[in-house]
Amino acid sequence: MLEPLVSKLNDLRVILASGSEQRAALLKSTRLNFEVVPSNFEENLDPKEHTFSDFVEKTALGKVNDVWERLKNDERKPDIIIGADTMVTFNGRMYGKPKTKEQAIKTITDLTHSPHIPNSVYTGVVVRYKNEIRKFTEVTTVYMAKLSPEEILAYVETGEPMGKAGGYGIQGMASTFVDRIEGDGNNVIGLPMSRLAKLLKQIILNQF
Amino acid sequence: MLEPLVSKLNDLRVILASGSEQRAALLKSTRLNFEVVPSNFEENLDPKEHTFSDFVEKTALGKVNDVWERLKNDERKPDIIIGADTMVTFNGRMYGKPKTKEQAIKTITDLTHSPHIPNSVYTGVVVRYKNEIRKFTEVTTVYMAKLSPEEILAYVETGEPMGKAGGYGIQGMASTFVDRIEGDGNNVIGLPMSRLAKLLKQIILNQF
Repeated sequence: MLEPLVSKLNDLRVILASGSEQRAALLKSTRLNFEVVPSNFEENLDPKEHTFSDFVEKTALGKVNDVWERLKNDERKPDIIIGADTMVTFNGRMYGKPKTKEQAIKTITDLTHSPHIPNSVYTGVVVRYKNEIRKFTEVTTVYMAKLSPEEILAYVETGEPMGKAGGYGIQGMASTFVDRIEGDGNNVIGLPMSRLAKLLKQIILNQF
Repeated sequence: MLEPLVSKLNDLRVILASGSEQRAALLKSTRLNFEVVPSNFEENLDPKEHTFSDFVEKTALGKVNDVWERLKNDERKPDIIIGADTMVTFNGRMYGKPKTKEQAIKTITDLTHSPHIPNSVYTGVVVRYKNEIRKFTEVTTVYMAKLSPEEILAYVETGEPMGKAGGYGIQGMASTFVDRIEGDGNNVIGLPMSRLAKLLKQIILNQF
């Protein structure tokens, strides 16, 4: 979708305000040129005080604002800053990145206990173009297989769940127990490419 | 799902009978050891004489049988051979890999013309374990955005559509115009990991 516009987009200074390798790989697949500048924004919003959508959008905005503050006095200001935050919800609860092995086991046990009940992956995306901000949340439904305690433990022991919202990497070993998704698959990896591309297209076509 | 079994699986000689880099990458994400041996099977079945499912399963079987014939007299016979074939259907028609730029343009134009009408990706999988064969077809529904003729032409000019069933790479630039899928996302890339993992598990648990 962006192919006819890539040369125009590449005249702009584009920043991905994220340290996620997965997000960088997804954005790179479009052949855009961009710089990776992870934010120092402290991700400490209280889940109880926000809807799921507000939570991820505010966190993504925090990342974008942090990177903007650090780069706005550069000789060449950033034109576009892209920020995103992903988390998983199940049964009304929010699951972020597990911090310990025990948390990872609990998370995967919850998410794979009832194969017919899906979890929902929320990614909030914020795009800053010059002084304007657009944001949206994309939600993807994920149905996982039921796993045995041995399978969960062995999966956690691989280390893959650490640093991943909901404790699973759909592009990694978890691909074997994600039975079905409904929605944008890249959203589960961390960046909903279809809607993000539409925003980038609006910027180039002066419809942002 | 396979993590507790990986060491047992790695005692076996596992062959992926496919030249697809995407399939190899997916299988590699499980941390299994396997060899890649592309088949020489001529993919020339007549689409008119087969259901979609029969077509991809027979092609996958042809690939597995070809590789088995070539390797069966090895000092160490293959224990497991995995074959797969993927194609896209839309409006009752089958779309394989485009052979020319014109075919690629026609294919993408067809698939993106009516965003509310999805295409269906069929992957037939055949697993041979010793002298036994199992096969299945996994189907994933894909909803694409409407593209302009300029966008289609620019996408085809990148070369990505060539060599891909249905003329699009969901892991590549086409991620920006795949709005939604329903089913196993890896199936669209070429290997339905969830059901394949269940078959490999059955082999180790002697339930094949």
